[in-house]
Amino acid sequence: MPQPLRLRWLFSLLFLLPLLAMAADPLPSWYNGASRQAIEQFVSAVTEEGGKDYVAPAERIAVFDNDGTLWSEQPLYFEVLFALDEVKRLAPKHPEWKTQQPFKAVLEGDQKALAASGMDGMLKIVAATHSGMSTEAFIAQTRRWLATAVHPKTGKPYTEMVFQPMLEVLQYLRANGFRTYIVSGGEVAFMRAFAEEVYGIPPEQVIGTTLDARFQDKDGQLSIQRLPKLTHNDDGPGKPVSIDSIIGRRPILAFGNSDGDLQMLQWTMAGPGKRFAGLVHHTDSKREWAYDHDSKVGRLDKALIVANKQGWTVVDMAREWQRVYPFDTIDSQ
Amino acid sequence: MPQPLRLRWLFSLLFLLPLLAMAADPLPSWYNGASRQAIEQFVSAVTEEGGKDYVAPAERIAVFDNDGTLWSEQPLYFEVLFALDEVKRLAPKHPEWKTQQPFKAVLEGDQKALAASGMDGMLKIVAATHSGMSTEAFIAQTRRWLATAVHPKTGKPYTEMVFQPMLEVLQYLRANGFRTYIVSGGEVAFMRAFAEEVYGIPPEQVIGTTLDARFQDKDGQLSIQRLPKLTHNDDGPGKPVSIDSIIGRRPILAFGNSDGDLQMLQWTMAGPGKRFAGLVHHTDSKREWAYDHDSKVGRLDKALIVANKQGWTVVDMAREWQRVYPFDTIDSQ
Repeated sequence: MPQPLRLRWLFSLLFLLPLLAMAADPLPSWYNGASRQAIEQFVSAVTEEGGKDYVAPAERIAVFDNDGTLWSEQPLYFEVLFALDEVKRLAPKHPEWKTQQPFKAVLEGDQKALAASGMDGMLKIVAATHSGMSTEAFIAQTRRWLATAVHPKTGKPYTEMVFQPMLEVLQYLRANGFRTYIVSGGEVAFMRAFAEEVYGIPPEQVIGTTLDARFQDKDGQLSIQRLPKLTHNDDGPGKPVSIDSIIGRRPILAFGNSDGDLQMLQWTMAGPGKRFAGLVHHTDSKREWAYDHDSKVGRLDKALIVANKQGWTVVDMAREWQRVYPFDTIDSQ
Repeated sequence: MPQPLRLRWLFSLLFLLPLLAMAADPLPSWYNGASRQAIEQFVSAVTEEGGKDYVAPAERIAVFDNDGTLWSEQPLYFEVLFALDEVKRLAPKHPEWKTQQPFKAVLEGDQKALAASGMDGMLKIVAATHSGMSTEAFIAQTRRWLATAVHPKTGKPYTEMVFQPMLEVLQYLRANGFRTYIVSGGEVAFMRAFAEEVYGIPPEQVIGTTLDARFQDKDGQLSIQRLPKLTHNDDGPGKPVSIDSIIGRRPILAFGNSDGDLQMLQWTMAGPGKRFAGLVHHTDSKREWAYDHDSKVGRLDKALIVANKQGWTVVDMAREWQRVYPFDTIDSQ
């Protein structure tokens, strides 16, 4: 082989070095702050064979809240925005909604009347938009919505408003033998419509709020029909309950962002051996939103106090994340 | 190396050959009958890369009923025998049971009065023995019982009364990239007490009947407390419902043994592509029990008719299994 060709090869390799270094960094969107170090130290400790904190792969269960932890949740939970869009789409089939609350408020864009309808109104909207069809049909409709709907502020599809640093944490954990679960107040089938494609989390690792359902055999056509009744509210104390019921193991890592995640974090930390609890703190009014104890959505008050007291990892989004969304350029701060 | 030593090696290898052949047979307890062939043909078809029936590993979900499919269920479901033993163990703490049905009947061994208390009585017994403690405490107690209790007929521990041919099917499927699930009318924590050790099925792949539960924080001591209320009856149409809710994928293989498995088998077969439905038919009055359409426990009537009509695999236990239990010697028939 002639010498010049060999040199050219070497030359190309030199240019590849920075790319290789980047590929070797599992968390490129994280500044080298306290949270990143805590995550890396935890993963090193529990995966070091023969180490005192070693955890067998089967027990490496990591649970993540979804809204506000893996994707944004402002100005309202994205699933609520879906439900409001669905009310508008379905309105022609429901002429009675023109005069019936809370539907009238949604159709007229009357925020005040909608807020006044409260939790009872919200449950009516969820029932009207999330039940009365098969699971398959509901997931298909969720996907149609996700494919076209855009966020009112960013103009981006909702599935792009996921947190790039958290995608990296999910991937980093899986590369280290963890199984990553979603444990969220979101309805389970709604999240399954995108969790695998967007987060790499398969349907059987998505746990959420559930509706009652029944098996239907209609002239040999089988389906699972969704009913307008909540059977499990996967929020607050409901999270450790569903983890115990569905996974049957206690996680060793949990990540949340609001008071609704407190019990899941506490349950995770109360087990034996080394454990990790993390909170995403929304401190970034420029790239995302800044909110905590006063927020109606994703209120973070008591959990932040406990986290600080217990020394849990609190991620300061504004200072610790090089980018928030996949579409952000590095150093956009 | 001197020649004699070489010959000795060769000689040893000759003796190993039958053992190697055995190791290569994934289903040694099955006679080469129609059921064994159907199982092997199905697994070959869905795992052949590039083949027309190929199924990606993530979709290779196999679901198994437990009672009567993976272990025996006569004279009564083993979990019922556990509950009856628990009533006796707990009786000193409940003097009122001496005069209260159905507990009085259990304590006096009054089968007639117990039968007369019906489903309502059974639910009272389940509530009294399965709730009022944490999940951890319940699982620990189940394990204590399993470690010492023996079956009234065989005198064997219940965990030895599992079907060796089915253990081989579970192992064979996992070796071919399947994930094996239990989907059973048994209570989920009861089954998790032994499913991993006995079947190699981890807690997160055990689905069953569930009790309500609540997260308890008692002076900082956290636990999941079991409540005396059924939240899901994982029998009949409840099986496809829990599969849809918890796995979120349709299985491609299902195995059951009674009418309570019919909807799970139908749901499995109604999906696209190649699928497998199997029924264990209890035809062996010598080594196990012989029962079907007239049995109070594990009644098999409608599902057998459907299976024969649809050409599902019906395992004739007496004729197709070389041995039933792990403790049976081969050719014990």
